[in-house]
This record gives sequence, C-alpha cells and structure tokens, in this order.
Amino acid sequence: MKSFCGAIFLSMVFTTLLPPVVNAQTREKGPWWPNAQWGAADAAGGSNWITPDKVLKATALVKTGRVIELGHVYERGMPLNGSRSYNIFIPSFPTHGPILERGVVFNDEYVAAEIGQVGTQFDGPGHVGQRVKMADGTETFVFYNGVPAAEMRGPYGLLKNGVENVKPILTRGIYIDLAAFKGMATLPGDYEIRVADIRGALAKQGLKEGDIEPGDALLFNTGWWRLWPDPKIESAPHAFAGRELIDWIIARKPAMIGSDSNFDGPEALVHTELTMKNGIWNLENMAFAAMANEKTYQFMFVFTPLPLKGATGSPGRPIAIL
Amino acid sequence: MKSFCGAIFLSMVFTTLLPPVVNAQTREKGPWWPNAQWGAADAAGGSNWITPDKVLKATALVKTGRVIELGHVYERGMPLNGSRSYNIFIPSFPTHGPILERGVVFNDEYVAAEIGQVGTQFDGPGHVGQRVKMADGTETFVFYNGVPAAEMRGPYGLLKNGVENVKPILTRGIYIDLAAFKGMATLPGDYEIRVADIRGALAKQGLKEGDIEPGDALLFNTGWWRLWPDPKIESAPHAFAGRELIDWIIARKPAMIGSDSNFDGPEALVHTELTMKNGIWNLENMAFAAMANEKTYQFMFVFTPLPLKGATGSPGRPIAIL
Amino acid sequence: MKSFCGAIFLSMVFTTLLPPVVNAQTREKGPWWPNAQWGAADAAGGSNWITPDKVLKATALVKTGRVIELGHVYERGMPLNGSRSYNIFIPSFPTHGPILERGVVFNDEYVAAEIGQVGTQFDGPGHVGQRVKMADGTETFVFYNGVPAAEMRGPYGLLKNGVENVKPILTRGIYIDLAAFKGMATLPGDYEIRVADIRGALAKQGLKEGDIEPGDALLFNTGWWRLWPDPKIESAPHAFAGRELIDWIIARKPAMIGSDSNFDGPEALVHTELTMKNGIWNLENMAFAAMANEKTYQFMFVFTPLPLKGATGSPGRPIAIL
Amino acid sequence: MKSFCGAIFLSMVFTTLLPPVVNAQTREKGPWWPNAQWGAADAAGGSNWITPDKVLKATALVKTGRVIELGHVYERGMPLNGSRSYNIFIPSFPTHGPILERGVVFNDEYVAAEIGQVGTQFDGPGHVGQRVKMADGTETFVFYNGVPAAEMRGPYGLLKNGVENVKPILTRGIYIDLAAFKGMATLPGDYEIRVADIRGALAKQGLKEGDIEPGDALLFNTGWWRLWPDPKIESAPHAFAGRELIDWIIARKPAMIGSDSNFDGPEALVHTELTMKNGIWNLENMAFAAMANEKTYQFMFVFTPLPLKGATGSPGRPIAIL
Repeated sequence: MKSFCGAIFLSMVFTTLLPPVVNAQTREKGPWWPNAQWGAADAAGGSNWITPDKVLKATALVKTGRVIELGHVYERGMPLNGSRSYNIFIPSFPTHGPILERGVVFNDEYVAAEIGQVGTQFDGPGHVGQRVKMADGTETFVFYNGVPAAEMRGPYGLLKNGVENVKPILTRGIYIDLAAFKGMATLPGDYEIRVADIRGALAKQGLKEGDIEPGDALLFNTGWWRLWPDPKIESAPHAFAGRELIDWIIARKPAMIGSDSNFDGPEALVHTELTMKNGIWNLENMAFAAMANEKTYQFMFVFTPLPLKGATGSPGRPIAIL
Repeated sequence: MKSFCGAIFLSMVFTTLLPPVVNAQTREKGPWWPNAQWGAADAAGGSNWITPDKVLKATALVKTGRVIELGHVYERGMPLNGSRSYNIFIPSFPTHGPILERGVVFNDEYVAAEIGQVGTQFDGPGHVGQRVKMADGTETFVFYNGVPAAEMRGPYGLLKNGVENVKPILTRGIYIDLAAFKGMATLPGDYEIRVADIRGALAKQGLKEGDIEPGDALLFNTGWWRLWPDPKIESAPHAFAGRELIDWIIARKPAMIGSDSNFDGPEALVHTELTMKNGIWNLENMAFAAMANEKTYQFMFVFTPLPLKGATGSPGRPIAIL
Repeated sequence: MKSFCGAIFLSMVFTTLLPPVVNAQTREKGPWWPNAQWGAADAAGGSNWITPDKVLKATALVKTGRVIELGHVYERGMPLNGSRSYNIFIPSFPTHGPILERGVVFNDEYVAAEIGQVGTQFDGPGHVGQRVKMADGTETFVFYNGVPAAEMRGPYGLLKNGVENVKPILTRGIYIDLAAFKGMATLPGDYEIRVADIRGALAKQGLKEGDIEPGDALLFNTGWWRLWPDPKIESAPHAFAGRELIDWIIARKPAMIGSDSNFDGPEALVHTELTMKNGIWNLENMAFAAMANEKTYQFMFVFTPLPLKGATGSPGRPIAIL
Repeated sequence: MKSFCGAIFLSMVFTTLLPPVVNAQTREKGPWWPNAQWGAADAAGGSNWITPDKVLKATALVKTGRVIELGHVYERGMPLNGSRSYNIFIPSFPTHGPILERGVVFNDEYVAAEIGQVGTQFDGPGHVGQRVKMADGTETFVFYNGVPAAEMRGPYGLLKNGVENVKPILTRGIYIDLAAFKGMATLPGDYEIRVADIRGALAKQGLKEGDIEPGDALLFNTGWWRLWPDPKIESAPHAFAGRELIDWIIARKPAMIGSDSNFDGPEALVHTELTMKNGIWNLENMAFAAMANEKTYQFMFVFTPLPLKGATGSPGRPIAIL
C-alpha cells in the first residue's frame, strides 16, 4: 500500500498546480510525455495493461455465461452534446434491386453523425488536448503522449492518436454502484464523488480497494442513465469526479473507466488528467438498467472500440459476461 | 447424424425449387416464416443459439488470453460496393475550445457512410428480402421471419428487423482455412467451395464436421483479404458458397458465418438462404492476416454488433481470444 | 373575366370532391394527367409559362437596378420541419495545404442536409404524391403529371420529376402584402386567407386582379418571416390558403407562388392542388424584411432552382430587381 | 487606356515578387489588405462593383429573353477534386406519409457533399489563404482582406469571409470563346492562355478590350467542359491563366471570372492573385454547350451564390439572358 499512497501523494502535488499554461516544454519532454510506461510512440494507453494473462484472468470470472448489456441503443432523438448530430436514413426502400429472377432486394442504412462522440461513447487519445508553451516560445495544443496539433491535425481523420490504436478491452470489469451505496436512484447533479464513497460502495459489495489491479475497467453507477433518452439531459448536471477521486483512479491504473454520464466535473479533470495525461480511457453514457438486480460485481468486461482510422472516439456495445 | 442428414435432405428439396416468385403466402405462414425455433416475433436469428451455457463453453476455450484481430480498419479509400461511401472528417481542429484557463480543447469526428454496409460488415435481419406473391394476390418484398416491406420501411431506420435485435456474438469460433487446404494464397475468383473442401480443411486442422455445434461461428478463409484495401477489389470475383455448401451450413445451425469476402455466389444464396430465411448471419470482409501463423482453430469469438436502431447491418471489430 | 370565373367554377366542382382515394385510373389518363398544356413527359410545370417574351417583359420592369433579397441565410439552428437536419462543417482548418513555396491553403465546407427541404425552399415536381387506385385494381402513389412511385423511386435521387427539370424562374414578381392590408405585423396563425384579402391588398398597392398574367410569380407576405430564425416556429401555425384561394391561384396560372411560410393549411391543398396537380411551384420560407419600406410591388423576380439531379426541392436565393 | 496600362505595370511589379513567405505584416496592414476600395470589413469583393446602375445596364442587354444555361447538373458520378464527395439520397420512398384521408405523401432528399466545392462551383472569400509572417514574429494563414486563420476558423462554418457575404451576380457577362479563336474543340491541357488570345477572341467576336468595364463577368471557354462528366477529368490538365493574363484580368476589375475548368495553372495564381488578394471571384466548371451556336457574346448574366452561412463556396445555376 505504501507505493500506492506515495503515488497518490506525488500525483496530488503535481496536479494541484494546474498552471493556466504549461510552460517551456519540448516535443521530447513535457509534463505528460513521453509516457513513462509505454514510450513516446504509444497511442494505446491503459489498454496496454490488458496483457494475455489479464484476459485469461477475466475469462476465469465467467461463471454462468450470462450476458448483460451495458450500453444504450443508438437512435434518433437521443441526448446529444452541443451541436453534435445523429442521423440515420434508409436510402429508398429497398435500396437495391430487385435482382435475379426471384426478385431479391437489399437495404442499406446511411448514418451521418459524430459517431464516436454520441450516445454510449469511448474517448480515444485524440479527443482531448491542452495549450502548452513550448521551449521555443511558441504555443500549441498538445494531446495524449505529447503529440502536438501540427502532427495530428488532418481534415479526413487525425494523423496520429486515432482511436484505432486502442486495443480491445477484454478485461475484468468492476461495477461500483455509488447510487445504491448512497441509497438514491440518482446522485444529485452537483455532487462531487469522494474516495470514501468508492470505498463504501466497494465494501457494501464485498470488495475492497486493494482488489483493484492494473488493467481493470472501473464502472461507476451514478443513476444518471435513468434520465436517458430524454434529449434534454445532455445539459443536465450529474455527479462527477473531482481531484481527489481522479488521483485515486490514476493510482489504480485501470485500462479505462466507465460511467452512465461523462463523469466529469467543471474542471474537466476526467478528460485531461485521466484521458489526455494518463491514457486511462473513458466510456461515457453507459446504461446500467440491466445491473439493477445483479449481485455479481466482478465480471468479464467486453468493449471493442471500432477501429475508425483517425477518429477521436468510438461507439460500441459494452458487455458484462457473468 | 441421422437428423442432420434429414435436415439437409429436406432443405435441399425445398431450396432447389427456388421459384422465381414464391406464391400465395400469408403474413402468418410462408416459406421461411414463422421461424420454427424462435417464433414469429424473432429478429435475433442464429444469435439465439448463443445461450449462457454456450458462452461459458466459449470462455473455456481461452488458453493463453492472446487476442487476434479479425477485421479491417475502417478508412477512406477502402473497397466499397457499388455506390456506397465512407467519409470521415474532423470538423475544424480542434473542434471545440479552448475552454478553461488552461486552454482545454476537444476534437470530434463526423462520419457519413453506409456504416453497416462498408468494410468489415455484419448483415442484420433487415438487409435482404425477396419478392413474394401473397394469398390475396398482391406482391410484396418479404424479409427475415416474414416481415413484409410495409411493416418494415421507414425513412429514418427500419421499423422492424433492425440490427439492434441481434444479440452479441460471444461464442466458439471455428476457423476453416480453405486457402491453406488448397495450398493457395487465394482461392480462384470463380471457385465454388464444396463441402469436401470444408471437410478436408477441418481434417487438416485436426477437426471434423461432427465437432460443429449450434451457435458456433464458422469463419472461412479464402485468401481474398490479401487484396484489401485495393479499392478495385469490390468488383473482383471471389470463391463462393453454392447450393451444396449452403445446405451444409444450414444443417450445422451456426449463429453466423464469416469470411474474408461476402462469401456469396451469382445466385446470392448466402444472402437469401442463410441470412433471410434462416437467420444465420454473415460477417463480410474479415481480415485473416493475423491467423497466418496460428495453430489454434477453435477459440472464443467476440463480435458485438453495434446497436444502431433500425440499421440493416453493423460495423465492428471481430476478435479471436486464444 | 368570364373565362376566369368559369375556370374557377369548374375547378371548384372538381376539387371539392377530393375523394379519399382516387379510383380506377391508368398510367395514361388520370385526374391530373396527362398535363393538358405541356404533355405527358413534362416535369417543368408552371416554369413553362416563362417564355422568352415573358422574360423580356420582366427585364423591362427594372427601373433602378436595385436588388432586394427575398430569402433567408441558411444556417445551423434555423427552423427545420420534423426530422430534417442542416449540418455544415469545415473539415479541419485549413482543409487542404499548405502547398507551393508560399504556403497556399484551401478550405472546403461539408454540408449534410435535406438541402432542398430546409430554410428558403422550392418544392419540385417529385415532392408530393397521392394514393391512387389504378384501373387494374392496384394502389400506388402518383406524383406530378401522373408519374407513379414505381417509375420515380430510386435510392440516390428520383428517377423522374427531379427538380432539375424546372426552368429558371426569371419573370415578373408581384408582391402581395397581406399583413399590411390587414394592418398587422403578422396574420393570425389560424387565419384562412380569402380572395377578398388578395383583392384588397392588390388594390391598396394600386394593382388589380386582372393585371396578373400566366407565368408571374405571386409572392404573399403574411408576416410569418418575423418569427425567423427561432427554431421553434416550424411548428407554429401560420395563415394559409384554403380551397377558395387555391382555386383563384390555379385560375391565374402563375409559374409559382412564394410566401414567408409554406402557405399551406390543414388540408395540404397548396402541396396537392397547386404543386402536384397543376405544377404551380411553391417557394417556402421567403424573407420579406427588405420589402418593408418599398413602394414597388412589381419587379423582375429571379430564382434559379439548383439543378440537383433527382432532388425533390431546391434551396436558392430569391431576388427582386426593382 | 493609360491608367489601365499603368495598373497592369504596377500589378506586375508587385506580383512577380511572390515571396515564399510574406514578411512582417500586421492585422491592419498587409500586402493585400485592407482592401483599398471597400475597406477592412469587406467580404463581398468584386460583387461590390455591381451597382444598381450596373444591374440596370445589364438588363438593357436583354434583346429576346432567351435563357441559356451555363452550368452542369449536379449528379452522382460527376468529376470531383481529390477527396471531395457528392452523395444524394431519397430517405425511404416516400419519405413522409401517407397523411390525410386521401393518402398524401412527401419525398425529401438528403445531400452530403462539399456542396460549394463540387461541380459548377463559386469560390468565396474564405476558400483561399496564404502563409504570412506577422510583425510580431508569428506565422499565420491569411485570407481575403487580411483575415487571419484565428478570426475565421470554426468547426461549423467560417466565422468570417463566408460566401453569404458575396452579393448576387446580376451583371453583364462577356463570353470569350478561346477554343473557337484557336480553331480547336478544346485547348491543349498545358496551354498558358495569353492576353493576345483574349484580344484575338474578342476581336473575332466583334468586341475589344476597351469594352470591358468594372463589374463585368468575364467567361472563358477553353472547351474543357466537353470532357464532363467523365469522373477522371478532375485530374486532367486544362488550359490556364498565367501571370500575364492574371494581371490583365486584375486591371479589368471584373466582379468575377468564370470558365469551364478552374482556370488555374501550376502556380495557383487564379486562386491567390484574383480571389484571395483582389476579391475577383471565380466560377469553376461552367458548361458552354448551349453557347456553341450563339452569336451573342454580351448578355445579362445571372448567378446568385447560395447564402450558406460560413461556407467557402457555393453551387449555383449560372444563366445568360440574351
């Protein structure tokens, strides 16, 4: 436990500085690069922790083979952040044919959407950046592992840090039911979740902090999914992770976190401290209705980000196998 | 084995008729509906065979935890069938921000594509239909489980038979390397694959026909993936399943088949006999480069169709866990 | 005047029937086809009335050369009907380059929208159809000039009756300020505009009914444009044309009408009686702010539908040259 | 003529410098800003020359009222530059309805395209920029009238210099048939058009250089339209304007030029010298088939750029009224 505490401490010292502009960095060396564990070329982040041994252990958690869905269906009218859109069409009907003597027809769908940033969504390494003042005096935006805007920007997809670099998430999922711990359907919208809440929820579920290992997927239920699919909820406040919890998560080294909102607070620490700096990916807008009556809190968790070359995020279908 | 052979026989008798127009059917009773096994309301087809017990057995196949990717990356310029398109954009760069004092920015991607019918693609129950003459004298197109066009058509997604109805594919995958069996990198483009080829390939791999069980995913390598991503290959011929193999597959009751092409021949029997009539789903354009040096042919296979409400198909990231 | 009245009478007799389903028609002969004036192959409708001589007369109306814009700017957030959408992006920024030694860059925009059915919009011959029972007992939807669904439907654009068939509208525009005549900023939302209102408004402007000639563009101000661009207004009621006014318009034979709403009432007579049956096109959601202080009510009117092959409508930039 | 020659001389002296990077400019004063004629806030460029008096004169050119179309139809499969795309769909068919007792239906089209940069296309003030070194040492890209990237960039449309700022083009069009002058169907692909060619073509048509006035639209036929709509032609070379002709055009002060290609050569002088620096807009990919047998070379020219807020260009339907 010592090293964990040390890690937390150091992390807190560092991150509470949060200078408005990070100064005098170079391409080779900066506050969150090169990545100490996976090197300067890495774009897979926490998914690297999912070794074959970790996958094997995850499969060993499967006891019954029951499959629980943890994501929303993608549909017109679902909540969308800001100016994002989700459109789906069936071009004519049927789209193709009839062909052959027996009159065979085919339908297509056409989807026009910020596909990796709508509904249940997984933020990849190219989604979040921050202003940095480089040693040569110029300012730029820098992303995961120190990749500056100039190396990443492209009209038809990111040239680096595309979501296709993230490995499939096949690992232990640990479900942490914060709403149940607090005895609420949904946590208050302005509530900063504390580490004590996590510990309490784990204890209630028969787990403890020390059970968590690198490469796990930590899944937090705040009850916010209950508001879905009311399109107005994207602007509704939700319980969030603040500095204390962020540092605790970093010290746990999960491959990713997931929750039923974007889990972020007014300082956007989930996006910057977890995702951008530490490569701990974030799966937003999960759906936990199907977990309501489960008594199993550890399982094989499956989420395979769609390898859309140069995309900033990915849709998907997160699953717990119990 | 008796019942299997009987099933094959009946199936062949029925399907060799292939009348240009199927006559005098009703909404309640037709040549491929109601589905004998899952009832008139089913839209999940072969994925129903993936019971918890089946999932559990699949996880038991995992020996090392190594993850093998079996799909292509989605990218501009990849092969596209007919008039289909795949466009991805980064709106401005960065798309949002900077916000907060430290200058945080965010990128989105915008994708406009026949997203379930490009690249590695999974055909759902609403993709294929056929002309049918109903008992009342009218003609219509009928899809999986007898759903007629009038109940299914909608401008913004199919009203029935959307791909979101298909359950996650978490089952045993059986890899059948036809190209290796024939001693070729890629099978000839006009080659009709025979059941004898399947049996030979299985035997070469130490497996036999009788090992196959309902709910498996049968994955066929014809070597066609080697031509990817040359955009011209969509019109290039590939080895295909004809009547004999189709009937053999139907009798095996797999949840789905997959291959490195669309596996279909000039009569479109994969699309109509497997998918439309029997709900044996088809994953097209898989990538088998990573299987080249493997000696394991049974594994846990993971493919989670994206739950796009009302879509005809789905992109995804098929995976073998060895 | 006699023949006009006769025409109105006959028209009323015919149209007040409005049978729920029009019965027993053939492809060659139906209630609104073949078009009596322009033949069975026509898809230009009222734009045919704009002969060279008519264009020449319109140019003669230009006295000062002042240009008045009569349309809205197309922008994100504007009112949109139902599920329609309007998205515009700048892919990266700049989109292309830099090229050449001096660093030349280029920007593109990407627009994804029901482009002919958003904002200031012009309905073409393929936009509106109606159920018809054919002589052979089948039912189908029939569009302008009797084109049935089967001849027109295509996934990638209409196969017939595309808006590219409509000729450029270069004709006399007659502005009829109904709101001013009623002494209101905006007419009440449930108000059925009567022919007496038209006559009154014309008289107030020094014009009379008899001045109107075939091929003119009749432009009606109801004041509804004042609500633009509040996105909520698409569902707000507006003053509309009922049966009496529809018949009056048909008898006038304008090339098109235009107004600051879609001008249609609960029976959709503008869409069916004017557009579908008579090819009198309808320009919706015009903007009349710039006409507020004008004292000229006849002018050269310019509207050039965008020749998008197979489109149902067109955006554009309507203009009055005074 | 003296002042014209002087203007040409000065222009040539200035532009032959063409430094790789223009140095030490400020937002207030740079090599092509503020615009000497229309001030620092202008984004309408040459369309400002089209005064009411100019419009009036243009209408006086109309002798018969005959309308000649000078643009291509927009359609799938047309030539597209680089990665641009043009997709049109009919969502289902019909898209909406049936409604009302009589079964009224409606169709929409959905267009997804770089709509202002495909087919017959008009480049606006935000399309072209160039690298500039500012007096403060920073480098940026600067566009029409000195607007730097930082003031213009936005994900959902340009914040300045959008094409909606350009006024309707209602002016004299002068058709200059270079292919006819050279006695060719199509000029050679590597041919630099010289001022002598222009003078020769004008003389052949009974016109002379001195007839051209500020605000005219100069339309050049090189015969390249004959290759349309072969999708391969976008990469086919075409005759182009070099430095000499560019300077001659600048001295003429047209509102815009148009041609049947993009009229630009390897140095991109049309895009930078005409459009970016001088606000002389460029209408690309016009169609001149309908002019083949005309003997009238001056006419009322109509082109109304679509007011797409923040777009870089516009589609449209250019027209000559004879």
